[in-house]
Amino acid sequence: MSETKKRPQTKNKGRTQKPQNNTKKVKVSPFKRAYKPTVSANTKSKPRQKKAALKPPVRVAFLGGLNEIGKNLTVFECQNDIVIVDCGMAFPDGDMLGVDLVIPDYSYLEQNRDKIRGVVITHGHEDHIGGIPYLLAKVNVPIYGTPLTVGLIENKLREHSLSAPPKLIKKNAGDRFSLGCFDVELIHVNHSIPDAVAVALHTPAGNLIHTGDFKVDYTPIEGRMTDLNRFAALGDEGVLALFAESTNAERPGYTPTEQKVTDSFDKLFSTARRKRIIIATFASNISRIQQIINCAVKYGRKVAFSGRSMINYMSVAQELGYVKVPDNLIIDIDQLKDFPPEKIVLATTGSQGEPMSALSRMAYSDHRKVSVGAGDFIIISANPIPGNERTVGNVVDELLKRGCEVVYESMYEVHVSGHACQEELKLLHSLVKPQYFVPVHGEQKMLQKHRSLAMSLGMDAKNIYIGDIGKCIEISENGIKEVEPVPAGKVFVDGLGVGDVGSIVLRDRKHLGQDGLIIIVASLDVYDGHVISGPDIVSRGFVYVRESGDLMDDIRTTALEILEDCSHRNIHEWGVIKNKVKDDVAKLIVKQTGRSPMILPILMEV
Amino acid sequence: MSETKKRPQTKNKGRTQKPQNNTKKVKVSPFKRAYKPTVSANTKSKPRQKKAALKPPVRVAFLGGLNEIGKNLTVFECQNDIVIVDCGMAFPDGDMLGVDLVIPDYSYLEQNRDKIRGVVITHGHEDHIGGIPYLLAKVNVPIYGTPLTVGLIENKLREHSLSAPPKLIKKNAGDRFSLGCFDVELIHVNHSIPDAVAVALHTPAGNLIHTGDFKVDYTPIEGRMTDLNRFAALGDEGVLALFAESTNAERPGYTPTEQKVTDSFDKLFSTARRKRIIIATFASNISRIQQIINCAVKYGRKVAFSGRSMINYMSVAQELGYVKVPDNLIIDIDQLKDFPPEKIVLATTGSQGEPMSALSRMAYSDHRKVSVGAGDFIIISANPIPGNERTVGNVVDELLKRGCEVVYESMYEVHVSGHACQEELKLLHSLVKPQYFVPVHGEQKMLQKHRSLAMSLGMDAKNIYIGDIGKCIEISENGIKEVEPVPAGKVFVDGLGVGDVGSIVLRDRKHLGQDGLIIIVASLDVYDGHVISGPDIVSRGFVYVRESGDLMDDIRTTALEILEDCSHRNIHEWGVIKNKVKDDVAKLIVKQTGRSPMILPILMEV
Repeated sequence: MSETKKRPQTKNKGRTQKPQNNTKKVKVSPFKRAYKPTVSANTKSKPRQKKAALKPPVRVAFLGGLNEIGKNLTVFECQNDIVIVDCGMAFPDGDMLGVDLVIPDYSYLEQNRDKIRGVVITHGHEDHIGGIPYLLAKVNVPIYGTPLTVGLIENKLREHSLSAPPKLIKKNAGDRFSLGCFDVELIHVNHSIPDAVAVALHTPAGNLIHTGDFKVDYTPIEGRMTDLNRFAALGDEGVLALFAESTNAERPGYTPTEQKVTDSFDKLFSTARRKRIIIATFASNISRIQQIINCAVKYGRKVAFSGRSMINYMSVAQELGYVKVPDNLIIDIDQLKDFPPEKIVLATTGSQGEPMSALSRMAYSDHRKVSVGAGDFIIISANPIPGNERTVGNVVDELLKRGCEVVYESMYEVHVSGHACQEELKLLHSLVKPQYFVPVHGEQKMLQKHRSLAMSLGMDAKNIYIGDIGKCIEISENGIKEVEPVPAGKVFVDGLGVGDVGSIVLRDRKHLGQDGLIIIVASLDVYDGHVISGPDIVSRGFVYVRESGDLMDDIRTTALEILEDCSHRNIHEWGVIKNKVKDDVAKLIVKQTGRSPMILPILMEV
Repeated sequence: MSETKKRPQTKNKGRTQKPQNNTKKVKVSPFKRAYKPTVSANTKSKPRQKKAALKPPVRVAFLGGLNEIGKNLTVFECQNDIVIVDCGMAFPDGDMLGVDLVIPDYSYLEQNRDKIRGVVITHGHEDHIGGIPYLLAKVNVPIYGTPLTVGLIENKLREHSLSAPPKLIKKNAGDRFSLGCFDVELIHVNHSIPDAVAVALHTPAGNLIHTGDFKVDYTPIEGRMTDLNRFAALGDEGVLALFAESTNAERPGYTPTEQKVTDSFDKLFSTARRKRIIIATFASNISRIQQIINCAVKYGRKVAFSGRSMINYMSVAQELGYVKVPDNLIIDIDQLKDFPPEKIVLATTGSQGEPMSALSRMAYSDHRKVSVGAGDFIIISANPIPGNERTVGNVVDELLKRGCEVVYESMYEVHVSGHACQEELKLLHSLVKPQYFVPVHGEQKMLQKHRSLAMSLGMDAKNIYIGDIGKCIEISENGIKEVEPVPAGKVFVDGLGVGDVGSIVLRDRKHLGQDGLIIIVASLDVYDGHVISGPDIVSRGFVYVRESGDLMDDIRTTALEILEDCSHRNIHEWGVIKNKVKDDVAKLIVKQTGRSPMILPILMEV
């Protein structure tokens, strides 16, 4: 706690601004001064280097969240202690066929397990907690988070069997606790899930702030607004480096308040009249579900839930008191038939058009308990995440074809983002006045936009660092420097397998998926290699075989000729024979069909 | 030509508005009257039905372009004549693995080949001409289009070997010509490719208008604005039915003029200073390329092209005089090195982030002739087509990582749509005043929005028809009625194969692509079925085999046990044996890995 007193407040008042001695117009930002090392006002009499040498540097390694969306994990290291902020997963890209989820490479953490004092989680979204079971399977480190966050982690860990019981420690926003030489402080922020925090790390090197995901909502549905006062106080105290999220760095303006959504729901509920209302939203957006509940109460409707993840989130949130639900409001989905449509709101998953989600099933008449039609008023209370536009559009189209009324996207303000837009980011930067700035959580274009934003506030480009996963930096009063990189990458989880699917497997999956497969199997005599049985041709995903008899015959003939020819010419190296079969059959197929299926010759010795 | 005189102009002036005898507020649109049958003003003395009976109905069948984007093809049928408007292809959805393109089912056209008088093409985009080679391979019908459109079709047909020479007939906007009982009129419209037309079909049933793709640009780069005067004249004359495109029906306002892009290019060219400028845009957007050329001339830069399709479009457009290029302006891509960066503009394909396109290759350092870096100023003069957001974003990120300056999307007005937004659609509806309206070219949500738009102008819902592919309607003065549907669907083109990839092949491709493959191959004794050789296990796209030796051994053991067991128990039906192997191995694999690869047991008799 004494850490806070080490760096006296400095208001920079005593510093004179550099006189402008050229006639060229120079834009001087009001924040320019603030970005200069706040400590320097106090060290006038001492040589700068000596002062800086007194403080150890802090090392920061990025295992995820840079140049990608998701799998956020930042490693802070000072003296002999490591504190990790967040431990997320990412969803696979379209080219990671069959992969369920992507986690960081944890080998740097395994190598340094003895130094790790704890993992601090900013909030309960998958891109911040989804990697925890896999990390704990390697290193059983203590996990710190707010009550809802810890509740969601507990819930998640139930699906995984860990060898040792996890150490989950609940802390509240505002709490401070020591992890080695780190004094960790949780700062309340607004986001699209309750109980989210930013993390201030008071370290021997100076104060660091990691925002996690945040926005500024002056009138949130639950709790208070982002603790701007605390950010301001830390800014006055002096912040060595700010790590701020960049998700909406490309978006000008402010993210509107959640109250906008309340107003829209109110209007739409009164419009829906005698229809059943179905609202799709993110399962984790507990404030949004609270709004749905509030509106249902107002309009005398019961609320049912559909979708496993929504039911999961709701049960944790209800148990911990994060949603206020009047008695007898919630009904089971099986009770829908007991109420007239105008007495029902069904909250459902599937706002991203995910193929197996509840809303998709309803759209494609594949939901066991809900069938939709002209009596349904459907609200999609979410924006499509980039890449999901088509699937969401397809679901909307199917619902419309069935006669449903559908309110989607920007037709109405039925969704607001959980992330800070440019004006909010400017507010944060201006309060915190960090010496150094590292944009995090975003693709390259977002990180670069965030850098431009900081520069527009007067920050010097050399005090901003854009990193990448695996990069490691050392931050001190003297600057940011890149040091030896750490192992980092994308580890694929497919079913129960972690890391057993790599580039070769994915390359084969892509080939098989695009062009299908031809298997040529034959039994050869162990002595002279002549064909005893076969060759038989098996194909999958290539052509409709029943209508391609001639092609199959041609393939068989070609393969047989090569095998017999090899036998006659005493070629017995199977690698050679297989390659000859593969090459000649490939040529035949490309000529006749213009395609390149995977060709697998299998020879058996009898 | 006499067709224009058959239906006298009617200004509806003599018609009294129905008195409003209720106190309820009824919104009366100024256009309401216009939507009533314009002919009725003239038939006061005759009983309505008798008059209507004098005119034959027109049939319209939709083979593509409804509830989908692309493969536009509409069949108009009157008396014994068929006229087709457009013959496009569509790009495959993400779940059509390995499919190159999608065309309509042409069997209705094959069945009615004797009635077809011609195909009228509205413009040279792939979604309007891409199906022509495949249609001509079935039915060699004459194709009509404007000079640029025909030039692009000729160019396309060179890649296909057709048994009979195609009949391509050039017509100009404003021309009228007879196809059976149809009097066809081409009406100039603005779009994102020059020489685009709408089609008016003057038929014995009445006048029909099909807009093709259009927008209204009062100050286009080339040629004149959409021929609003002609639409107005036809509206005065009387239009039985309007078929209007719906691509931007969800977008309020107007599509800005192409001159906005000129202004932006001008600003960006002056900003780029000493950097090389690279502009990615749609290869077919010849006006955009003209703008690039104009700007290059102004700023003293040479122009080079990259990307096969851009070079193709440019050569046709230049040959036919659709781009004006000063001498010595265009250089070959190999000459880039002979000029300093500030003297170069490189126009390239890849604005949609297509993996094999020129811009993607540059971004991923895979382009043979161009490598990009801090000296490049890159403009992406296109918006991502829904579904392409991620790939475009990835390309932008890669370019930024290489230090390029990148101007993309809405950062600047570097792109305008080629399609009419709501206000333009309203203008068209209001000029044409059709009796019936059929929204075309769009997904369900766009078609429904377009319907709402027409209704907001006072049109009656019962006079609007939202169709689907395969639907066939009969339109007459008396109304629109659905008649017997026609065969329609999605035919997949994969390599040289047309229609030989269907749902089973796609299902297998998906399975193989997601989970990979296990092949279990064994030779069995022809007499007692005992295992002579094997079982051998071959896997692809499943796990990295070298690290999964134990699993492979377990699979082999399981398979062997089943085969031997079957042999002992005198089970010789191979279907039964294979299913047993498949089931038991699947259980083993799901237990050990949580995955479900395709399992292919192959047994050989020796």
